[in-house]
Amino acid sequence: MSEPAYAAVDWGTTSFRLWLVAETGAVLAERRTGEGMAALTRPDFAATLESHLEALGAARALRVVICGMAGARQGWFEAGYVDTPALLSSIPARAVSVSDVSRDVRILPGVAQCDRRRPDVMRGEETQLLGAFGFDPKERATICMPGTHSKWVTIDEGKVERFTTFMTGDLFSAVMRGTILTHAVANADDAEDAEAFRSAVSAAFETPALAANLLFEVRSRQLLYGGAPASARERISGTLIGLELAGGLSKDSMARGVTLIASGRLRERYMSAFDTLSVPVRGVDADETALRGLALCARSIWAI
Amino acid sequence: MSEPAYAAVDWGTTSFRLWLVAETGAVLAERRTGEGMAALTRPDFAATLESHLEALGAARALRVVICGMAGARQGWFEAGYVDTPALLSSIPARAVSVSDVSRDVRILPGVAQCDRRRPDVMRGEETQLLGAFGFDPKERATICMPGTHSKWVTIDEGKVERFTTFMTGDLFSAVMRGTILTHAVANADDAEDAEAFRSAVSAAFETPALAANLLFEVRSRQLLYGGAPASARERISGTLIGLELAGGLSKDSMARGVTLIASGRLRERYMSAFDTLSVPVRGVDADETALRGLALCARSIWAI
Repeated sequence: MSEPAYAAVDWGTTSFRLWLVAETGAVLAERRTGEGMAALTRPDFAATLESHLEALGAARALRVVICGMAGARQGWFEAGYVDTPALLSSIPARAVSVSDVSRDVRILPGVAQCDRRRPDVMRGEETQLLGAFGFDPKERATICMPGTHSKWVTIDEGKVERFTTFMTGDLFSAVMRGTILTHAVANADDAEDAEAFRSAVSAAFETPALAANLLFEVRSRQLLYGGAPASARERISGTLIGLELAGGLSKDSMARGVTLIASGRLRERYMSAFDTLSVPVRGVDADETALRGLALCARSIWAI
Repeated sequence: MSEPAYAAVDWGTTSFRLWLVAETGAVLAERRTGEGMAALTRPDFAATLESHLEALGAARALRVVICGMAGARQGWFEAGYVDTPALLSSIPARAVSVSDVSRDVRILPGVAQCDRRRPDVMRGEETQLLGAFGFDPKERATICMPGTHSKWVTIDEGKVERFTTFMTGDLFSAVMRGTILTHAVANADDAEDAEAFRSAVSAAFETPALAANLLFEVRSRQLLYGGAPASARERISGTLIGLELAGGLSKDSMARGVTLIASGRLRERYMSAFDTLSVPVRGVDADETALRGLALCARSIWAI
């Protein structure tokens, strides 16, 4: 086996992913756990990283590049933000060196939109954008990155021009767990109900002002007309995604299309939602974008 | 002390209120507890009612009229619904007699909007509407009844023409308790921040499609610019109320004004929200509307 040139880590709120990468870019080994920022206190970060590197037999001097919430104020070591409009190529140059470890560990910065009318922050998604678009994309693009806190990003001339976070996934969990709708979805099985999902997407997209009503309607509909708990769940999901699309899409992006960076079930849901609204989509699988972005930064930082 | 002519009960999801009322309409005694539907199983309802009547020394033959969730399918005894357009005067006639008790107990029906495109239900609010407007109001009015599940009702020619439920209070609790914003409002004191509340109302009213973003913005703002947890709470509340008003208000009702049936802190919040949008409001205190509506129905049912 060839020697790793560096380790790349995507360290989010609820997940930890580590890859050992050869100079050629080949992945030599991988680890995936739930040891995200939320599960760790500050002293745990170094120990967690070392334990995984040791388990993979990595050399004591192996360099490490990290993106994500490990760089948050409440994370391991604060990595600050690049302000919008943020040149994608400036991200590796703004990485910080973690000072209390023996090896060379760099954490990439997030991106902040310091606009008092529209303040916003991202941390980790900037690296996925690098993975999907490289350092210097020429085209203008609208990107949707769905998740707990979905990001909608406009890039132009190699810069993150502006972005908007929608707490769609977070709201979905809270609504499912802690409202009157919890009863409506109790014991829901995995059955899909594409029609319920699509009609909820359309309704919320067309009348976003009725979002809090469309959610209650899930219960009224079940009470008056029956329906499976799984259909109720699909309606809740469709309503919240439709609301997000109403806020994220512009006339321009509806015509030109959107780049969707997502994987698995979430990718399917958003593909279906965009299709419902006849918006052209280019899909990029989210699974490898963070690794690709980390690799670009590693090569830039260490001139590999 | 004069003899009670009947007992009136407002039996909601989380609260129980009982009044002993004289033939003159005077309230002779009152009880208020948290024994709402959510805290009771079916056999508990009769026992709970009897224990309160006994504690107040009520006669074994005293008649009882009830509104609210006690009449739901999961409540004590299902009282059905009057369909929209629902004559307010038809409500007492559609009361059901509880069959498994020795005394004369009537539960008032709710109102259902059996429209597959806009299904909705209310139970308890119809009695408050009766209390506020009587059996046969001639004027057309838009009524806002804020709460866990806020109701917006259009009455015209003595009928509930249509209505819309917004799960504003339910969403507020879920967002405060179970999302990333839980951290933003941790240890919030009671301090008000009228400016934060009002600016959030305006923003959500003007761009309801951005609701899930405006909520996340509460956190971004705190992260980038600081701010008290209490201000974050006011912004969350203002965003959700502004979203409700965007869905509830029409051009017509914004010009003609709205009747607000509310009390306490909720009344203040909504008064401030309507004022922010320059919508004229007539306030009706919610504390006594249920009793007044129950009294009207008792007189009609028993020809008192």
